[in-house]
Amino acid sequence: MKVGIINITGYAGSELARIIAQHPEVELVSATGRSAAGQNISEVFPHLSSLDLTLTEELDDDVEMVFSALPHKASAEALLPFIEQGKKVIDISADFRLKDPQVYEKWYQTVHPKPELLENAVYGLPELYKEEITQSHIIANPGCYPTSAILGLAPAIKNNLIKKNVIIDSKSGVSGAGRGLNLTTHYSEINENVHAYAVNGHRHLPEISQELCSINDDEFDVTFIPHLIPMTRGILSTCYAEFNDDISEAEMDTVVDSYKEFYSDKYFVDVTDSAPQTKHTLGNNKCLVYPVIHKETRKLIVVSCIDNLVKGAAGAAVQNMNLMSGFPETMALEGLAVYP
Amino acid sequence: MKVGIINITGYAGSELARIIAQHPEVELVSATGRSAAGQNISEVFPHLSSLDLTLTEELDDDVEMVFSALPHKASAEALLPFIEQGKKVIDISADFRLKDPQVYEKWYQTVHPKPELLENAVYGLPELYKEEITQSHIIANPGCYPTSAILGLAPAIKNNLIKKNVIIDSKSGVSGAGRGLNLTTHYSEINENVHAYAVNGHRHLPEISQELCSINDDEFDVTFIPHLIPMTRGILSTCYAEFNDDISEAEMDTVVDSYKEFYSDKYFVDVTDSAPQTKHTLGNNKCLVYPVIHKETRKLIVVSCIDNLVKGAAGAAVQNMNLMSGFPETMALEGLAVYP
Amino acid sequence: MKVGIINITGYAGSELARIIAQHPEVELVSATGRSAAGQNISEVFPHLSSLDLTLTEELDDDVEMVFSALPHKASAEALLPFIEQGKKVIDISADFRLKDPQVYEKWYQTVHPKPELLENAVYGLPELYKEEITQSHIIANPGCYPTSAILGLAPAIKNNLIKKNVIIDSKSGVSGAGRGLNLTTHYSEINENVHAYAVNGHRHLPEISQELCSINDDEFDVTFIPHLIPMTRGILSTCYAEFNDDISEAEMDTVVDSYKEFYSDKYFVDVTDSAPQTKHTLGNNKCLVYPVIHKETRKLIVVSCIDNLVKGAAGAAVQNMNLMSGFPETMALEGLAVYP
Amino acid sequence: MKVGIINITGYAGSELARIIAQHPEVELVSATGRSAAGQNISEVFPHLSSLDLTLTEELDDDVEMVFSALPHKASAEALLPFIEQGKKVIDISADFRLKDPQVYEKWYQTVHPKPELLENAVYGLPELYKEEITQSHIIANPGCYPTSAILGLAPAIKNNLIKKNVIIDSKSGVSGAGRGLNLTTHYSEINENVHAYAVNGHRHLPEISQELCSINDDEFDVTFIPHLIPMTRGILSTCYAEFNDDISEAEMDTVVDSYKEFYSDKYFVDVTDSAPQTKHTLGNNKCLVYPVIHKETRKLIVVSCIDNLVKGAAGAAVQNMNLMSGFPETMALEGLAVYP
Repeated sequence: MKVGIINITGYAGSELARIIAQHPEVELVSATGRSAAGQNISEVFPHLSSLDLTLTEELDDDVEMVFSALPHKASAEALLPFIEQGKKVIDISADFRLKDPQVYEKWYQTVHPKPELLENAVYGLPELYKEEITQSHIIANPGCYPTSAILGLAPAIKNNLIKKNVIIDSKSGVSGAGRGLNLTTHYSEINENVHAYAVNGHRHLPEISQELCSINDDEFDVTFIPHLIPMTRGILSTCYAEFNDDISEAEMDTVVDSYKEFYSDKYFVDVTDSAPQTKHTLGNNKCLVYPVIHKETRKLIVVSCIDNLVKGAAGAAVQNMNLMSGFPETMALEGLAVYP
Repeated sequence: MKVGIINITGYAGSELARIIAQHPEVELVSATGRSAAGQNISEVFPHLSSLDLTLTEELDDDVEMVFSALPHKASAEALLPFIEQGKKVIDISADFRLKDPQVYEKWYQTVHPKPELLENAVYGLPELYKEEITQSHIIANPGCYPTSAILGLAPAIKNNLIKKNVIIDSKSGVSGAGRGLNLTTHYSEINENVHAYAVNGHRHLPEISQELCSINDDEFDVTFIPHLIPMTRGILSTCYAEFNDDISEAEMDTVVDSYKEFYSDKYFVDVTDSAPQTKHTLGNNKCLVYPVIHKETRKLIVVSCIDNLVKGAAGAAVQNMNLMSGFPETMALEGLAVYP
Repeated sequence: MKVGIINITGYAGSELARIIAQHPEVELVSATGRSAAGQNISEVFPHLSSLDLTLTEELDDDVEMVFSALPHKASAEALLPFIEQGKKVIDISADFRLKDPQVYEKWYQTVHPKPELLENAVYGLPELYKEEITQSHIIANPGCYPTSAILGLAPAIKNNLIKKNVIIDSKSGVSGAGRGLNLTTHYSEINENVHAYAVNGHRHLPEISQELCSINDDEFDVTFIPHLIPMTRGILSTCYAEFNDDISEAEMDTVVDSYKEFYSDKYFVDVTDSAPQTKHTLGNNKCLVYPVIHKETRKLIVVSCIDNLVKGAAGAAVQNMNLMSGFPETMALEGLAVYP
Repeated sequence: MKVGIINITGYAGSELARIIAQHPEVELVSATGRSAAGQNISEVFPHLSSLDLTLTEELDDDVEMVFSALPHKASAEALLPFIEQGKKVIDISADFRLKDPQVYEKWYQTVHPKPELLENAVYGLPELYKEEITQSHIIANPGCYPTSAILGLAPAIKNNLIKKNVIIDSKSGVSGAGRGLNLTTHYSEINENVHAYAVNGHRHLPEISQELCSINDDEFDVTFIPHLIPMTRGILSTCYAEFNDDISEAEMDTVVDSYKEFYSDKYFVDVTDSAPQTKHTLGNNKCLVYPVIHKETRKLIVVSCIDNLVKGAAGAAVQNMNLMSGFPETMALEGLAVYP
């Protein structure tokens, strides 16, 4: 299958190219990159020089599936022609994630380019929506923070274990902030440093809320504080919830098993028996989920981690592509983590 | 004033030596270091070579005040003779922090060497106990995590703003784990990595609980999850609390001012107007506190950060020494942060 | 083909397991790990948990090829029985690298366990000894520093461009120092730090000398100073040589082409047109070589970099295995670098 | 004494402010910062908020000495009025370092704004030019790389030990590249990475050459290759030279002593007995110099390290100010390194 990537010149785009390069059934035949059109990809990304691809202004017509790694708004706009041609698209931006165009407008401070398409889009988290993804033509690839948080809390919500009030404290590597230059991500500023940001509302908050609420068609109060820490890849979310009043201590003892049961047929989620480390996911598509029970304070704490560029972006996109195309779900995604 | 340091060979001990070296009224005349006795300090710490001090088995008799940077239990045992001689001591270990010897026994898995001294010891957080410190002969220097958490939450508790159920999510640099060798702190294991640890109960939990409870003589449910992140120095704690039901939104608007008021005469605590960064405290004795109000979910979130080896250990010890000795509280601690 | 790894519990061993896991023709069926015998590999290396292998005291009899990642001396001793059984072995330690047992004895301060085998061993650098590797039963897998230095200088030496006096200044990530605990590799000591070490003679010096000399059967004065820098993976060597007096400036202009010619049929060496970065080799088996000509001072400077655990250890071992076993040389080694 | 800083908003400028803040005889009364004029310094640098200084377009008239941390060309232009007023100036840029305006023009690709002043300027390396600095009104504060290289090689050159052909391989932390945004210094690009740069000629090369040549009025072939490594502060230079043919092995044995003799009255240079580490200079004004003798290859290797922002910039500037103003040379510069 021939695929194209719109805006390959960021970290999500280049990571997608890396993963697709090892996919036996898929060929990357075309890629755009805003200011780099006309250049060979090796000039932008020496590590991709073996792809020998020239970046163009527009994707070739012969691509059968399209990934967009553009920023929001521009992404939907660039994908529209392909959608109209009936091609399957996977949008790594936020444009098709929020079901409600007014929520989109509030958080992204712009009018959605094509709100009528939102109902056709599927939130591309295969661990929750595998069936729908298989049928869909438009995939909204999940955000990196939401992926870690939703996979960490979904089993507890599904099983009605926790109250409707959760706190998500996330720690992200710097690559999540992208390849664009910014004082915040200037080496000397963020090395040997940690800080919270977007404390009054990060754009991934409505996405997390929407998805947590939709699990059981509930309302949820979500508090989400992201932090930037001095590493390149990886997100670790520590989720705090309170057990429902009707959950006994004996039932708390079964929570870990219920998590394992929930993810028993999900290849890319491992429920771990000790505190997981982002390093154990570096470069691969796993999400590690670790539920901890504090009986005395009746708290459920779930630590969850991923590689933000793989399971949090490009790997999930390939997983979605596999499902949409009838390939095995794990194809090109079996590589183990690069440790240490 | 002549002072001595018991066990200078760890990070808290060497940092204490660095700070005392710039103190105009105090001279470090004697220091012990377990396996390094007989060596010049320059062999262990080249950056301290100008001190030209030979490490010994026992402190010289002429020291007038004693700091101990030994591990718990050993620390109290080593300080006892000096206490009996009537000398003032500052214990950087946990031995004199917990008022209840049974709590100590439970968390440190050992019997306290001298429980009858606990009532004489003062918890050395000058922002809360300045008067008592000035009068005391035994100072329990606070833990690094507790310092960040207590200073973050004290004004809210004092002013009866929050419910008795707080969550503290802390991120620590690796130096907090000490100089002892351990796979967890081996460079290749923790670089480019983040993980939670001690998720079922860190030893700083009872210390935090004790101090939060004592502010208003209340009970508090404290959930505390520490994380190790890839940097050398710094702790950032993100504290989550819920406003009391009787707090109106108008009252929430005054919280930042009440924090500024609370710390108005505390030189080492700055209430900031934007998210603080550990880098802005590197090498100095400041604690930066940043309260955030989420009206919709009625949450108070406080981000608080320090240099774990300064305000979280050696700097606080010098601050305590200054108070106990009648020196200006800030003496030798005025240095600005080393940035970037 | 069934293979075994002796001492999988270090970084070279675990990296070997990671690479073999993606090899379509090879199965890792057995592995030893000194203190971890009896444990499942997932207990030691969570990122390898899908291998579901129990570590043992001894390798299974049915392994067809054996890798050893033991330290020197112990490695040769452990491999001897397999060599005697006629099995092919790849030694990642230094035991079969030095042709002269007295040189070995001088640098490793121990008598070689089986010096008569040295003449049967082949130095496993396929870019120089592909033919011999194909025929050999005992492969001495090259050291990480030597791989970068030899590949950087081989074309210049082969083409008689430089004087017999070279300086190699190498910068290594910390994983090269292994998984054993040491104050030097304690996170807080080496983070935000750089230093030279082994300045009076690193064990890789005789190995580099031997191989540079053997290219043209010459003598070479080699000065080699390694440095430890704060990153986990990667080695970059900057090699300084003086052009022979008979080399004209016009000839200097052809050096880059001669390098490209020299490596034209070597898949894993790329001669680059700009300064290479270790990050562009992270997790893959490439060596990037960049020759720079300073006409005014008649210097040839070659910058060369690799991932020390891949091309500098486990990847080279798999490349050697492929050659010894008739598999395509690049099998399981085609993965692109994990960037950023 | 009242001083001003032109362009305080970079790393050299802010470090200067940090050091001056602890100077008992000097007050920073005025500072400019290009785009930040009108802002309080706390908005740009929270760690300097206690200075309570408002940035302005122009320096106040009452400053008695002026530091410029502007880029080259702009720096000389901004200093000219103060020089004409007879005020003493210290230029942290390169504008007054090169004695020959044509060399300046070649390397900086611009005409020097005031070449006739070059003969009045003194190269501000107090370890070589203390007397001249004391008398001068215009100080050219040395570059960071040159400081490490010159201090490493000066004793060997002065004592006629080495041939006129030296190689300097330098490793720099990222703060040396400044606070301006650039893909090279974007966190995700340089973290976990190392590379050489400016391999065909860095602007510090003519400065190093000029100064090495001027020690004995000699010619020197200098090869200088700088590398960027993933840490914020610190430069380590490894210098390679060949002993003169008339130096016997017995004379080589005295080299370390001759280095110690050379620097015996230089407070800020320590000749060390083991390989120095940049971490041992973090935040302070020391240069650590470590000469190594390789008799077999007749090489002198000198490893030298500094904090690039202190001894390599702001600390040296304060040292120069002290000398020019009759303050003790070490005033405000006695602080020990911040370790770990």
